[in-house]
Order: sequence, then structure tokens, then C-alpha cells
Amino acid sequence: MNHRVLAIAAHPDDEVLGCGGTLAKLASNGCKIFTLILGTGIASRYEASDTETVSRKIKKLREVMYKANAIIGVKKVFVDNFPDNKFDTVALLDLIKAIERIKKTLRPDIIFTHYEKDLNIDHQITYKAVITATRPLPDETVREIYSFEVPSSTEWNCPLSFSPEVFFDITETVDLKTKALSVYKSELRRFPHPRSLKGVEINAEVWGMKTGVKYAEAFKAIRILK
Amino acid sequence: MNHRVLAIAAHPDDEVLGCGGTLAKLASNGCKIFTLILGTGIASRYEASDTETVSRKIKKLREVMYKANAIIGVKKVFVDNFPDNKFDTVALLDLIKAIERIKKTLRPDIIFTHYEKDLNIDHQITYKAVITATRPLPDETVREIYSFEVPSSTEWNCPLSFSPEVFFDITETVDLKTKALSVYKSELRRFPHPRSLKGVEINAEVWGMKTGVKYAEAFKAIRILK
Amino acid sequence: MNHRVLAIAAHPDDEVLGCGGTLAKLASNGCKIFTLILGTGIASRYEASDTETVSRKIKKLREVMYKANAIIGVKKVFVDNFPDNKFDTVALLDLIKAIERIKKTLRPDIIFTHYEKDLNIDHQITYKAVITATRPLPDETVREIYSFEVPSSTEWNCPLSFSPEVFFDITETVDLKTKALSVYKSELRRFPHPRSLKGVEINAEVWGMKTGVKYAEAFKAIRILK
Amino acid sequence: MNHRVLAIAAHPDDEVLGCGGTLAKLASNGCKIFTLILGTGIASRYEASDTETVSRKIKKLREVMYKANAIIGVKKVFVDNFPDNKFDTVALLDLIKAIERIKKTLRPDIIFTHYEKDLNIDHQITYKAVITATRPLPDETVREIYSFEVPSSTEWNCPLSFSPEVFFDITETVDLKTKALSVYKSELRRFPHPRSLKGVEINAEVWGMKTGVKYAEAFKAIRILK
Amino acid sequence: MNHRVLAIAAHPDDEVLGCGGTLAKLASNGCKIFTLILGTGIASRYEASDTETVSRKIKKLREVMYKANAIIGVKKVFVDNFPDNKFDTVALLDLIKAIERIKKTLRPDIIFTHYEKDLNIDHQITYKAVITATRPLPDETVREIYSFEVPSSTEWNCPLSFSPEVFFDITETVDLKTKALSVYKSELRRFPHPRSLKGVEINAEVWGMKTGVKYAEAFKAIRILK
Amino acid sequence: MNHRVLAIAAHPDDEVLGCGGTLAKLASNGCKIFTLILGTGIASRYEASDTETVSRKIKKLREVMYKANAIIGVKKVFVDNFPDNKFDTVALLDLIKAIERIKKTLRPDIIFTHYEKDLNIDHQITYKAVITATRPLPDETVREIYSFEVPSSTEWNCPLSFSPEVFFDITETVDLKTKALSVYKSELRRFPHPRSLKGVEINAEVWGMKTGVKYAEAFKAIRILK
Repeated sequence: MNHRVLAIAAHPDDEVLGCGGTLAKLASNGCKIFTLILGTGIASRYEASDTETVSRKIKKLREVMYKANAIIGVKKVFVDNFPDNKFDTVALLDLIKAIERIKKTLRPDIIFTHYEKDLNIDHQITYKAVITATRPLPDETVREIYSFEVPSSTEWNCPLSFSPEVFFDITETVDLKTKALSVYKSELRRFPHPRSLKGVEINAEVWGMKTGVKYAEAFKAIRILK
Repeated sequence: MNHRVLAIAAHPDDEVLGCGGTLAKLASNGCKIFTLILGTGIASRYEASDTETVSRKIKKLREVMYKANAIIGVKKVFVDNFPDNKFDTVALLDLIKAIERIKKTLRPDIIFTHYEKDLNIDHQITYKAVITATRPLPDETVREIYSFEVPSSTEWNCPLSFSPEVFFDITETVDLKTKALSVYKSELRRFPHPRSLKGVEINAEVWGMKTGVKYAEAFKAIRILK
Repeated sequence: MNHRVLAIAAHPDDEVLGCGGTLAKLASNGCKIFTLILGTGIASRYEASDTETVSRKIKKLREVMYKANAIIGVKKVFVDNFPDNKFDTVALLDLIKAIERIKKTLRPDIIFTHYEKDLNIDHQITYKAVITATRPLPDETVREIYSFEVPSSTEWNCPLSFSPEVFFDITETVDLKTKALSVYKSELRRFPHPRSLKGVEINAEVWGMKTGVKYAEAFKAIRILK
Repeated sequence: MNHRVLAIAAHPDDEVLGCGGTLAKLASNGCKIFTLILGTGIASRYEASDTETVSRKIKKLREVMYKANAIIGVKKVFVDNFPDNKFDTVALLDLIKAIERIKKTLRPDIIFTHYEKDLNIDHQITYKAVITATRPLPDETVREIYSFEVPSSTEWNCPLSFSPEVFFDITETVDLKTKALSVYKSELRRFPHPRSLKGVEINAEVWGMKTGVKYAEAFKAIRILK
Repeated sequence: MNHRVLAIAAHPDDEVLGCGGTLAKLASNGCKIFTLILGTGIASRYEASDTETVSRKIKKLREVMYKANAIIGVKKVFVDNFPDNKFDTVALLDLIKAIERIKKTLRPDIIFTHYEKDLNIDHQITYKAVITATRPLPDETVREIYSFEVPSSTEWNCPLSFSPEVFFDITETVDLKTKALSVYKSELRRFPHPRSLKGVEINAEVWGMKTGVKYAEAFKAIRILK
Repeated sequence: MNHRVLAIAAHPDDEVLGCGGTLAKLASNGCKIFTLILGTGIASRYEASDTETVSRKIKKLREVMYKANAIIGVKKVFVDNFPDNKFDTVALLDLIKAIERIKKTLRPDIIFTHYEKDLNIDHQITYKAVITATRPLPDETVREIYSFEVPSSTEWNCPLSFSPEVFFDITETVDLKTKALSVYKSELRRFPHPRSLKGVEINAEVWGMKTGVKYAEAFKAIRILK
């Protein structure tokens, strides 16, 4: 397999939470893996006026992000600066164009991105931007698009609606996923919070159980061209 | 709390799989708990011609059923003889009438039953019969109806659609649930099969995680009258 | 019953239209009832430039609001100043934070709020903000969230989608509801407009009829933790 | 207007409950109205063994049916003998063929029939049979198909899903509807039961209110060819 | 027939793509047809800073628009200046008011507009604005609202959801539609792009085939008052 | 590619109509292709009493079926004798067991079958039987399940709901598909009937257009395990 795979996420850590095990598996199978993080992350937790703290925290988070992505075999991480938890203050068109720029350079054939009905507004908008940026025109390189869930966002929207039909067996790579995740210390919470190491692990175990394997990641098929 | 609670299931073990922890919790809170099992269970695994084996297996399963129900605090179990995995060969009206008879005697105010979109045809039909038998007429005793999931049926329908909004914290009673389940030896499978002790436990752990507690059972609210 | 109940609405009058009878019932049962109105209401009917008229109208509406809420037994009304019929010009995050502030002070366990698919954009966004502000973390106080309908908004979205499964019998309090509503004179219209006294009354009568009582209010269960 | 209109219902009274006001309106506008009742009605309320009572009751109900239909201007009523509340014991194909026979004779261009997600199994199956019998082949006469609601069936399925987009103003004919209904004495219940004269009236009043008139009947557009 | 018909679209060419054949048919039947185009169109393809090019292109597009609309029998075209592919940067209320102004002047009884789940953000928002501007109040002139599809937008949202139930036979006017479309040279692409002359034609042929005629346009019924 | 592919259809011709181009493509890529036809087909068009004609027609249809399947590269065709357009008179369990038997012998990893919401009752039931027979147990061989559309059935259910996300480019094999189809003379109709050679071709052309190729077949992803 020599696919070119691009994971597009709103915030640092979403890419690992959503498809870290699958990216690691595809990387180990010879695919080239890239990540695009559209937002700064973290800023919404601080006073906007405290620009110094915010810059420092963002910088720190990005260092961590590069490490975590290296663990799961990502070749290169691209970052943009859309405002944390405020993608609804930006024109959707700007996000679309940001994605199109990266896409033209990378020419990926597989994309993993957010689920359209996550609780988080940035996730929702990222999804919209991605599917607009990858319309199936004759010369489009993208052949497969999948939506992942992000623990502590997907399951907290009401009503629950994530209904995946694609499952990757990540039994071989679940350890890489949790290892990468453990690097994102500032983003992790204590179990039973879903964004915890144990939470992520038993979630994968339950998807595995539902599909006949030990650990799995679950995806919604958005478009598959064969 | 002195509710009168009735769990209506298609096969022996569905009542424990679906709401065993919740029944145990309600029982310990002083509610009176009853179970109605509509089908014989098990028969579809054997040649119909081998009536002796089938009878023996059904008899054995019912003994087990009484034990399991006693563990979770069920006061009385009612059984009917609808054909295993063949409820679609019976007129829906016959199932409705069977439920109405029991309902009139017991006068429950809370009902737990199957989810309408389970893979299993008996589960689907049980749901339909229940909601017809409990129409909200002025003199109807039933005030609350909830659908439970049954591992190895609910999650194996396509597309996945179980979208619960009611969650019972069963941290105190998850042990009773798995104890009752372990009595149903013939129905259990080996993990990662979802109908295994570990499977049931981590499933409850994941619902717990999604709602801020250690273990939970998840339900779809069908009708709640207050 | 000693629940702490918070109704969160976009505009003055939505709280009475949506759940006035239920709030009155819960109040009479000993619950403590609070209301949070996020928007100013009314302003979109006037030229934005006519700031004096707008201020005067808003002031008048708030006086009326306090009276109406007193009638149905609300203990305290909180108001914010989000722009009338223009919540889409505000970052969702700002609404979330406004709700979280009040929520922390009041520590409610039951919340009533708008339905996600109302025609009115402020209603839609209020819903989104509420469910983000009440994620089921281990230390979250909110145990139950319900969406109400608002006549002249919910039924005018297309397609019709309000599909309630929770019904409160308001036979005892429907008079308090219409009394409170009649105070909101500027917001009422002439029957057959749904936002009329008769309209509200027969709507409650029809929900009652569908659930076996004289008058009822209908709600969508968003999340119920037990 | 000189449409040929056919109402297809499962039981005597469904045609008046569902579209009596609309049929009366269309009749008074010059359309030719026909009714096809597929099932016997009533039988499921009696012991099947008591064939004499059942026959007598069915005969009585049919007399009433002809009277009621005459009141709303129906030109001719066709009846079939499918078993009451047991359409699921009949091959769908037999129902389809029964409808096709009548349809060929009458050559209607507008059809009113049940809603696919009514609680009543006969209603559900009637819908399926109708849409199969009216596939839009080049020589098909049927140009418009609408689903009506039937009080005490449509609103008692769970979840509620009737989401009409077509509304007939029946202000002029609501009296004919209730008059026809009052003939169906054996089928009527006491308010607040939805199948009561007052129930039917306020239901029409609420649909009217939602669409700007005094009384309306609501329909789901199934197919409209122009 | 002497209906007053208004097509409301986001960009020049959407009105022809969506309902050009139907408008031409209604015009030839004696209806008065109007078009309202809310956005400038085209601008998002150019650098915003290059105001001169943008103005020139918009001017050119409008000339073309008048010609195309004349071909399909539109009596008058109204244009507004909402920013191309950036309706999400405008308050929804402003769009609603813009539509209400035109509507009051024209007093249409039939409206054709976008589908709510198109990929294009301007289409989505136009739909929302239209249904708010046409609430079924007693004095509302609009009696029928239909959503059309726009090739290269409707079918490129994920998941596919356009599920029409109203079909106009445009066998007599499909040539006018493609003729009008061919005037919009800057907007057309090469087949197999859906926004090509051949693409539009075979799309109409497939809808025709599904409804028993040679060529058809497909619509979602939003509200029909009779 | 050396997949083992099984197409499971209700009637002879459904397999070609639904996925003939894709089967031919997979065959030419080296996959082993099998077909299972569950029903006799055709019988419902004749009087049941005329057993001789029915037998003869079925025999003739099967000869044709083998030829058609050979054209698209199917290695072996399995047939069963479930009653034409009367699968609802059979216990679902019997269909499930019939599928399981073939499945155990063939050990396919990819399955194509009907769409769950086709108008045709046999199609609906086939779908249900297939997904029960292929539950994702640890030792299940089936890794991918896709639902195809069948012209003159899928598009004639109401509401339209087929929402595919998987598309096979069949530009290279569309001729084999129409060639195989032309063998099924008794099943073909005249354009604009959807079950005509031209109908099938332009349908594939429209799916192609929507996904950037000349001809495509469209599928709903049911389950994909990777």
C-alpha cells in the first residue's frame, strides 16, 4: 500500500484521538501520512487579553503535537491559526481555501476528518470545509473520506448520532495511539472522562468487540471512489 | 420509590443483558420488579424436528432464567411460548394481547423493553407489541417506557442507530448484573463476543464514561408521562 | 421534590410559551425555579438606529417579564443582552460562557431550553450553547435536560420535526400559564396565530389528548441521568 | 376541478378521520370521490370463534360506513375483507393486487391513504400496498398521493414522526367531517380520547392555527406529478 | 393558471439550473414569473482586493443573467448584493428582511428556492431565510414553497439527502432550459461535470425516467396550502 | 486483488441491475465472483394455479440467468426457491439459514446485496437476512457489505432514501453490464421505464457525473472491516 493519507483536525490531539491507531497502522503498511491542524487549540481556556500566556501555551502545545504525531508515524504536520473554539467567527470559505492549499501540495488520496455532528463547533465546521474542498471533480486526487469520532465531543452532542460503518482493527497499534496521546498531557483528563488514556482504550475495546477484534477505531464513510 | 416495573423481553437473558443493572438498582430502592419473557428462546439453534431436545433445552433455560432473575431482585417472572426467532410468523395482534393480559394483572407504571431497530426480528416485534399494548389512554397505568440495547443484537443491525438519552448509574449493581448473567451459561460467549461477561462489563463502563460515572446502562426514552 | 430548575430561553416570553405550565407545576411541588433569558428580545422589530425606542421597549418588556415569571412561581430571573434575532452574529463560545456563569451559581439539576430545530435562529443557537455548557462530566450538577416547543417558531420550521417523548400534565397549572402569558401583551397575537392565548390553550389541549389528560406540555428528552 | 379522488383506508372510519374534511371540500368543488376500505374493521375486538357476533358487527359497521361516506360526498365505497388488525398475516402482494383491481376500474388521479409509520399494523401495510400499486409508470393515472394521519394511531407510535407539508383548509367542511364521524358511533370514544368529536375538532383547529386558517387537515406529500 | 411565481436563488444561474424548465413551463401556461438573486455570484473566484475585476465580472454576469431569465420567460429579475459564498458572514436577519421587501411588492403565491442541505453555504442560508420570510400567517400570500436541486452542489454534500416528492414534466421546455443555461457561459463546465449542458440534460432525463416522462425537474415540497 | 465476492439478490436480473458493472470489473481484476438468487422470480406475474406455465417461465428465466451471469464473469450461480414477491410469507429465519449455508461453502469476503428500503418486499427481506447472516463475529469471513440500488424498485419507494457513499467507476465494464442485461429480455421494459437498457445506462452516467467519471454504480456502505 502506498496511499497518501491526510488527517485534517480542528485542534492538536483530535488527530490522535480520532484516528491515531489507524494512522499508525497505515504508516506501518507503507502509506505516507500527513496531518493538518486548522486551529490553534487551547486558547479558549484563557483570557483573550492575556496574549502572552496564550502564545506560550500554543507554542508548548505545538511542540507536543509534533512529538505525538511522530510517534504514530506522521511524516509532516501542517498547522494553521484559526481561532480556538471560534471557527464560527470565520468565513467558511477561508477554511475551505486553507485546506485546498495544503491539499494541492500533498495530493492525498485518503482523508480522515471530523464528524459533522460533533458537539464542538470547530469540528462541525472543519467537516464542512473538508467536504467542500474535496468535491469529486474529474481531477480530484482524494478517493476516500472518513469521519472519526473524538471522545468528549462526539458522544456529548444530543442526540447521539455517530453511526460508523467502517472499522479499522488497531490491535497492533493501540499502544502507539495511547503513547502518542500520553504526550498530550495538557489535553488529558482523569478517567471516567472520555479524554483519558483508559477512556480511549476501553472505547477502542468496545468498538473491537462489536466487530470481532480486540481493538478498533470506528469511522463514518463519507465518500469512497473505486 | 415504590414503582411497579415490568421488563418485557423476547428471550431469556435479554432482560439481564438489557436492563439487569437497572432492575437490580430499582429493586434495592424498593420498587417491585417483574419480567415477562415472550419467546421460548434457544429453539432456533436446534432442528425443529428434534422436539425432545428442544423441550429439554427450553426447560433448562427456564430454570436458569428464574435463578438469574432472582439475583437481580425480580419478584416474579412470566413466560410465554412464542416461537424462537420466528415472531414474524405470528400475528402481531397475538403478541399484543399476550402483553395486555399480563399488564392488566400487574398494573406496572414503568416498562423496559427492546429497541425497535435491533437486528433480531423478535426484538423488533416485541417493541411494536409493547407500544401498542401501552397506548396512553386516560386509564393506562404505564407512565414510562424505555428501550434497552441487547449486546450482539442492537449493535449488529446496520446502520447503527441506538441513540439513548436516558442513563442509569449502575455502579452499585453492575456486579449483580454480571452475576445474574453468569448463570445464563448457555447464552454466553467468549470475549470479544459482546455477549460475554467482560463484554457486558466494558460496555457498561463506556456508557458510564460518557455520562460521568463508573458504570451505566443506556436507554432510549419512548414515552414519559409526568 | 426539591429540584433546582432552570429554564434557559432566547427571548422574554419563550420561557412561558415553552414550559410555563410545567414550571408552575414544579414550583407548586416545592422545586426552586429560575429563568435565564439570553437575548434582549423585541429589538429586531425596530430600526437599529432608533436606540432610544429600542431601549425603552426592552425596558418595558423586562418589567413585564418579571411579572409573568412571578405568576408561574419563578424565584429569580436572570437576563443577558445578546442581540435580538442575531445570535448568529455572536461567537457561540460567548453564549456558552454566559450560561456556564449562571449555572455555576445556581447549580440546577433540571434544565428546560429550546428545541434545536426551531425556525428561530436564536432558539437554535441557545440549544447548542446549553448542551455544550452542560456536558455530563463527573461533577456536573445538571441531571436532566428537556427541549420545549415555542408556538410560532417550532411548528414553522420545515420540515416539521418536533417529536416529544416527555409530557407534563399541566391541567392544574394551565391557567397560570395563560395568565402569565397575558401579561406579555406586546408578544401576543390574535388567534389563529399560534402565539395567542387561545392558540396556546388548544395546543396544550391537543398534547393532553394525545397522552390521556386534559392539558399537557410536550418536551424532547435531551439527557436524563439517573 | 374535476379530479377523480380515491381514499384508501384499512378500516371503516379511517377515511373520515384522515381526510373527511378534504374529501368533502373536493366533492363540493366538483371532484368525483371514491373510497376503498381494505379490512373488515372491528373484528379484532371480539373472540374470533364468535363468528356470528363478528358478522353482525361488521354488517352493522358497513351500513354506518355507507352513511358516513355519503355525508362527505363520496360517490361510491368499495370494501374488501382483509382481516382486522391482522394484515400482517396476509401476503403484501394480495393487498397490492386488490388495490390494483379497483384502481384500474376507477382510474383516479389523486389518492389519499395512511401514513407509513402509524402505530396500527394495518395502516402501515396499507401504505406499502398503495405505493406499490401506484408506481409512476408512463401509463399510470395516479398523479398525486398523500398520507393522512388517523387520530389514536398516528400520534401513538413512538417516536412521533408525522411531519406533514400539505394542508387543506377545511373551515367550510369541518362540520360535515364531524357529522360523518358522529355516524360512526361504535368507533368513537370520549374526549380526551383522540377519536372523539371534540378531539378531531381541536386537532383540526391546531393544524389550522399552524397554517393561518381556522381548521385544516394535514398530509404528507408522497408523490406529486405535474 | 395565473399564479405569481418567485424563484429565489443565491447566485445567478442557480435559478435556471434548479427550476428553469419548470419556470418556462409555468410561464407558457400564463403564470407571471419573477426571480430574486440574493448574492453577487462569481466574486469568490477572484482576489477580494482586485475590486475592479470583481465589479466587471459581476456586471458581465448580470447582463448574462437578464438574458437567460428572459429566455425562460421570467418577467423581472431582482438582484441583491450579498457577498458571494460568504452568506455566513451576514446576519440571517438581513437576508430575511431583503426577501420580505421583495415579497411584499410581488405578492407571489408560489416560491421555488434552494434545498436546505446543499453543499453550498449560500444555498443553505437562502433556504433558511426564505422559510422564515414566508411563515404561514393568515395574511401570507405564499401558498406553495418548493426546494430545487442545483447540480454540483446538492449532490456533493455528504451524505446525499435530496429526496424529492414533486416532479414537473419539462419535456416541452427542457430545450429552453438548456438554451438559457448556455448563455451562462462563465458558469458552465465540461461534461462529466454536473454543471454542463449534457449533465443538466441527462439529470432531467433520469428524473423523467423515474416518474414516467421524458424529462423532469425534481423538487422537495416544503409547504403546500390548499 | 483476489477477493471472493458474493452478490445476493432476490430475483434473477437484480444482480446485474444492481452491481453488474462492478462484478465485471472485479472479475477482470482477478476476483472470484459468485451469485446467490434467493427467489424464483417471475411467478407473481402469473396465476398461482397455472403451475405449468410458472414452472416453464422459471426454467426459462434461469437459463437466461446463467448466460447473463457468465457475461459479467460470475463463476457460479446459486439459486433457491423462495416464492416470488412473497418473501413476507416465509420466516426470516429460513432465509437467513439459506444464506448461511451458501456462505459457509463459499467463504466470501465481499458481499453485494439489496438496499433495505427498496419498494420491493423481497428486496427488503433479503437485506435483513443478509446482515443477520453476516454478523461480525471473530471468525466471520465477510469483511465488506454493500447495498446496491435496483432500477424500478429503489427509486419507487417513498420517500426516496437511497444515499450511497461508495461508487465504482464502471466505465470499462458498462458495456458488459448492458450486454448481460439484454439477455434478460423478459425483465426489460421500454425506456423511459428505468428497467430498460437506456435507463440503466443513463442512470450509470448520472452517478458517474456526480463522482467525476463517465459511468459509475452507486452503493451504500453497510459494513467495512479493515
